[in-house]
Amino acid sequence: MQSFEFYNPTRIVFGPGTVPRLDDLVPAEARVLVLLGGSSARKNGTLEEVRTALGAREVVLFEGIEPNPTYETLMRAVTLVRERGIDFLLAVGGGSVIDGTKFVAAAALFDGDPWTILESFGQAVTKALPFGCVLTLPATGSEMNNGAVITRRETVAKLPFLSPHVFPRFSILDPDKTRTLPVRQLVNGVVDAFVHVIEQYLTFPAGAVLQDRFAEGLLQTLIGIGPDMPGDPGDDARGALMWAATLALNGLIGAGAPQDWSTHMIGHELTALRGIDHARTLAAILPANLRVRRDAKRAKLLQYAARVWGITDGPEDRRIDLAIERTRAFFESLGVETRLSSLGVPASDIDVLVGQLEAHGMTALGESHDVTPALSRQILETAF
Amino acid sequence: MQSFEFYNPTRIVFGPGTVPRLDDLVPAEARVLVLLGGSSARKNGTLEEVRTALGAREVVLFEGIEPNPTYETLMRAVTLVRERGIDFLLAVGGGSVIDGTKFVAAAALFDGDPWTILESFGQAVTKALPFGCVLTLPATGSEMNNGAVITRRETVAKLPFLSPHVFPRFSILDPDKTRTLPVRQLVNGVVDAFVHVIEQYLTFPAGAVLQDRFAEGLLQTLIGIGPDMPGDPGDDARGALMWAATLALNGLIGAGAPQDWSTHMIGHELTALRGIDHARTLAAILPANLRVRRDAKRAKLLQYAARVWGITDGPEDRRIDLAIERTRAFFESLGVETRLSSLGVPASDIDVLVGQLEAHGMTALGESHDVTPALSRQILETAF
Repeated sequence: MQSFEFYNPTRIVFGPGTVPRLDDLVPAEARVLVLLGGSSARKNGTLEEVRTALGAREVVLFEGIEPNPTYETLMRAVTLVRERGIDFLLAVGGGSVIDGTKFVAAAALFDGDPWTILESFGQAVTKALPFGCVLTLPATGSEMNNGAVITRRETVAKLPFLSPHVFPRFSILDPDKTRTLPVRQLVNGVVDAFVHVIEQYLTFPAGAVLQDRFAEGLLQTLIGIGPDMPGDPGDDARGALMWAATLALNGLIGAGAPQDWSTHMIGHELTALRGIDHARTLAAILPANLRVRRDAKRAKLLQYAARVWGITDGPEDRRIDLAIERTRAFFESLGVETRLSSLGVPASDIDVLVGQLEAHGMTALGESHDVTPALSRQILETAF
Repeated sequence: MQSFEFYNPTRIVFGPGTVPRLDDLVPAEARVLVLLGGSSARKNGTLEEVRTALGAREVVLFEGIEPNPTYETLMRAVTLVRERGIDFLLAVGGGSVIDGTKFVAAAALFDGDPWTILESFGQAVTKALPFGCVLTLPATGSEMNNGAVITRRETVAKLPFLSPHVFPRFSILDPDKTRTLPVRQLVNGVVDAFVHVIEQYLTFPAGAVLQDRFAEGLLQTLIGIGPDMPGDPGDDARGALMWAATLALNGLIGAGAPQDWSTHMIGHELTALRGIDHARTLAAILPANLRVRRDAKRAKLLQYAARVWGITDGPEDRRIDLAIERTRAFFESLGVETRLSSLGVPASDIDVLVGQLEAHGMTALGESHDVTPALSRQILETAF
């Protein structure tokens, strides 16, 4: 196992009907900015529940954080924080709202141009406002980690940042909040969490035996609940999705293990260019990525085939093919396309996407830093 | 899944050669009490390494925390903390030293009789000194949780306490520190961690599908590395043991799941009465406990048989018998006895042990609070 540091101080409050706990979790004297995405939290009553729980605290709303939250939008929230003397942020939404809130928390206290936060991948952050989350859409794991991805519209850049200062103080995980989600978003959550696990698992053997078992347990759980999503998932499936999505990216399974993330970085460029759902880009890139890099990932692909899909017979290459096909079939069974052509992406985008990767410094991706722009091109070509 | 709260702010620093990190982790101006068990940390050089890492800080030593740390010993450390103006504690050792340090941290700032801490199971604790750990013996998981078990010699009581104020600030997990351990202690570590997992897993189905997968992953990992322990385990096995023992009891797999702990509570009385190693008491009580309570635990025993031991054929009762026998055989294969008679316990102890359980309020144990003194008696009888 590789050496690692693991630290995650986010308090998780999990269960139906837990929103009223905000009253203990948010400081009594706080001046709170509640950050929201579209209109769903207002329509489905979650916003009202939040306001009730916050009681007599001064509450300001900031609505309209978009999927793939933009620097431009978030800087308006930063201005509001400064104007209104806000000292606590509360994200009510999914990964986009929470990622955006992390950026606002860091930018509001940042000296200098806040774009530096992203250019430095978070290194420049030395402090941030405290914030909590009410999660309404399980997928990204942002509710229990210290990372965020922000898009800058003017430069078509979608960049990640990490900082120890942007762990949520708490996150309320009420699985009942998933009841008003469209199937498409539930399914995206399954795919997103699944690929998060794969990025930290399907690399090369490094003696991380326990992390492998946990990763496999997450994948088995997601495979088990996936088919429930298009119908009306029961309480256990909703709860398992929410908790699995959180644990897929809270640092635990990646601690001491090599990590890939090239599927994400290529996918980010696709979202920045074409506005395709994050999870849908992952579902199209991942199978191609595994096919192209099957030799480097051989040992772990065989382990994945055996332990996750029960494929233990036949020649190695056949087992690997089958495991990749089972992965693709799993996504397709959820109604998620796994070909760029099916997503309406023209082949001419490949040059643009490779150019974006180069422009954003994404030239040595993957667990062995060997995913060059040429290899990214090959992955994109294979994804058609 | 049951509702839960999960919070664990302990920073883990994992890897060979990480003791020098103490210099960043302990406040520069701290007056440090280093707490130790027997003489091993002095003999094997760990104490010297710790002193070097602490540099110019004022360091006071407290040596002699015994296995199953006693109130009487720890209160001498509390006196030393007060006399010397100590403001940071550093546990260097295994679960006993860390448990003892938690008690000292809470007792040093406690107003009133510190025994109240244990009588209230920790409820009375409102503050504690900050402390960190250098783990030298993987087993109890104390390095990443907020619980401790303390023995009072004069009343033959071994009582647990829990408090949010006694999470370690950090724990250094250097797997190389296990190289000087006797095989008996490595094996105890495997058994202790294994039974910690079982207490949080082998109860009744409660929709905690992901927690079940993680628990099974821990058990599979421990079963995988167990046979390496009597020889010279490699780096990966030592690392996996250390991390598995930590994750077996850091709150993660138990969050949202029913929990048993009756094997532990009965085992504690046996250690308090006869001084038998904690892990050895668990290995003798667990198989008997599972046999006696097989009906209440039927569904999970079948799941355990299938997923952990691969036992899927034959009538249900036969599968359950086999799973319990495989568990017993696993412990025996490590050189750990699984019968109280083999541990030299006389049958006449049963009355004494049941009396102790009653005296300590342990009269409704287990996940359904149905392990009465009469049932504990039956378990003890079956364990011979």
